[in-house]
Amino acid sequence: MVGMVGAGQLARMTCQASVSLGIGFRVLAAEAGESAAQVCARTQIGDYRWLDDLRDFSSGCDVVTFDHEHVPSQHLEILEQAGVRLRPGPEALRYAQDKRAMRERLAGLGVPCPQSAAASGLGDVTGFAERSGWPVVLKAVSGGYDGRGVWVCGTPDDAAAVLAHGLDLIVEEHISFERELAVLVARSPGGQAAVYPVVQTVQRDGICREVLAPAPGLSVDSALAAQRLGIDIAAGLEVTGMLAVEMFQTPDGLLVNELAMRPHNSGHWTIEGARTSQFEQHLRAVLDLPLGSPALAAPHAVMVNVLGGDDPDLVGRMVHVMAADPGVKVHLYGKQVRAGRKVGHVTVLGDDPAGIRDRARRAASYLISGDEHEYPGE
Amino acid sequence: MVGMVGAGQLARMTCQASVSLGIGFRVLAAEAGESAAQVCARTQIGDYRWLDDLRDFSSGCDVVTFDHEHVPSQHLEILEQAGVRLRPGPEALRYAQDKRAMRERLAGLGVPCPQSAAASGLGDVTGFAERSGWPVVLKAVSGGYDGRGVWVCGTPDDAAAVLAHGLDLIVEEHISFERELAVLVARSPGGQAAVYPVVQTVQRDGICREVLAPAPGLSVDSALAAQRLGIDIAAGLEVTGMLAVEMFQTPDGLLVNELAMRPHNSGHWTIEGARTSQFEQHLRAVLDLPLGSPALAAPHAVMVNVLGGDDPDLVGRMVHVMAADPGVKVHLYGKQVRAGRKVGHVTVLGDDPAGIRDRARRAASYLISGDEHEYPGE
Repeated sequence: MVGMVGAGQLARMTCQASVSLGIGFRVLAAEAGESAAQVCARTQIGDYRWLDDLRDFSSGCDVVTFDHEHVPSQHLEILEQAGVRLRPGPEALRYAQDKRAMRERLAGLGVPCPQSAAASGLGDVTGFAERSGWPVVLKAVSGGYDGRGVWVCGTPDDAAAVLAHGLDLIVEEHISFERELAVLVARSPGGQAAVYPVVQTVQRDGICREVLAPAPGLSVDSALAAQRLGIDIAAGLEVTGMLAVEMFQTPDGLLVNELAMRPHNSGHWTIEGARTSQFEQHLRAVLDLPLGSPALAAPHAVMVNVLGGDDPDLVGRMVHVMAADPGVKVHLYGKQVRAGRKVGHVTVLGDDPAGIRDRARRAASYLISGDEHEYPGE
Repeated sequence: MVGMVGAGQLARMTCQASVSLGIGFRVLAAEAGESAAQVCARTQIGDYRWLDDLRDFSSGCDVVTFDHEHVPSQHLEILEQAGVRLRPGPEALRYAQDKRAMRERLAGLGVPCPQSAAASGLGDVTGFAERSGWPVVLKAVSGGYDGRGVWVCGTPDDAAAVLAHGLDLIVEEHISFERELAVLVARSPGGQAAVYPVVQTVQRDGICREVLAPAPGLSVDSALAAQRLGIDIAAGLEVTGMLAVEMFQTPDGLLVNELAMRPHNSGHWTIEGARTSQFEQHLRAVLDLPLGSPALAAPHAVMVNVLGGDDPDLVGRMVHVMAADPGVKVHLYGKQVRAGRKVGHVTVLGDDPAGIRDRARRAASYLISGDEHEYPGE
């Protein structure tokens, strides 16, 4: 029995993958309507911030894993001491929960990252900016995701406004990158690692919009360097399960931006596009099963996220997308449509990267707005 | 909400496919331990032979469909009259439930089939054999599957022994076929059809052991003829959902052997091997959604069934299969291991048909017996 804390779309798709392996799978959901709770035969309702609920949920699980990073680390330590097998464990998860700890640890491992410093007050920020130049990036040390908890500040006034929130922050240099890349690595407790082909991610307002697999035109040397970074970080932090490493590609090389220790949006394409999906791979890794092949199942795959728009009738629009392009793979998460919320994704595989990107964008655009030519921001 | 009557592995894999479409899915299971009941968030316990249970199950379903053919037809008619949307409907399903009706109807459609006649007594059988020659095949008119309800009789004594069971039977000529083929067609209520590439099935003791997709060395003309037969039968019988047509390839052409109106063992390879799996396709068809592409996702796919052996520890053996071949896709059904029972399957995709067949056989053989060289019957 694998227990996954959290019941969003990552848990939903992990639940779906668990069916093939013939293993038990349960989720800890805040309420029965959550994305994974709708489809999981063994949903437990509870609060991941409460130790008692976590204890109750863990009981009877061979392994407990996570679809987000927000479980309080003090609870994780108590559970681990009580013999619960947490994968990833609190020692690893800490670096996905605390950006300051992550930056320090990666520096210790010799991993190239943006310059970074503590930002307790405006003096820290302006002092940092004197060395790195404006703009700078302020980041909440914990709790951010999908662009929340990240502020690009062009002036001391901007920085002061962010500091006024009273959050625990770090300041980082603003990187002029050529593009963003991501590498997904699975690592099992025994140290076996499997790395997926490097992908390009296209973000807008801090939210992933598109993933192109493999990253177009990436040199073999850069791809190997990115994969090597992923494997070294997974080993260095002793990650168990999936690790997503988000990177900036710059003229001077790769810089690591963010880490996530779970299945990740940059790997949704693997459901159809790789021999083993990231969701099955995560289950294999946390169960200490031998890892599956991360090889591509087609020459190219494109995934485009479906963000909520104005009209809630996603299923109604899905009909037209299916009629227009029988080769598009639609994934809906069963979530209430809210503006900007990730409510699904589409994947298209094929030989022609530009053609499948166009098809995936049209499908996602239609699902969002009912207009296949309104791909946001284009 | 789609309701599927029955909770075997077909319902389990249909449940898995339903997750991506964001639709509700429930199963009617005899008990909570059944294959699909283990993974379905909305399992209802009941008896498909009882009208009250069927009525209760159907209430709140937009569509009701089936993972087997054993629901009494008089119940189906009552449900349909009460406004339940049954797909396939009783008029179509009749031809999957009653082999005599099926033979008569296919003859009426001009579909080539083995010669066939009623077999109420020994005189019918010996009279038939005088024309067709011995051996003959006796078949139960209803209720057979996986080789049950089919007897090859070499002599009048053999036939008399079968007749002594008191079943309702038909007699058919014994076909000396070159090999067995199957074609899968999806058909929606509006008449849209999508046909998968023709596959070769390898049966032993009446049970499907292997499926080779596409059927090796099949001429384009034969493939088109088989697909045309599938489409014509689906249209002629007004099937809604998946239709599997099992055929004999003979020197004189194709002969239709059996029909099933549901996802079918000969289509399990489509989960990884086709752009749209037969399980998603079945859901699309019964919901009257546009059908997905049935195109191959790889040049070749091989599926080998995992039948129960002596040792119940399937998951324990799965570890070794995964370690030996990271590219094998294992599907376990969560069923108790019993000798000869279908408890899972493996699929391998690739460019080299002989190589992937060998890999799939080794994996299945190891899962069955713990010996990768004991592929049964080889």
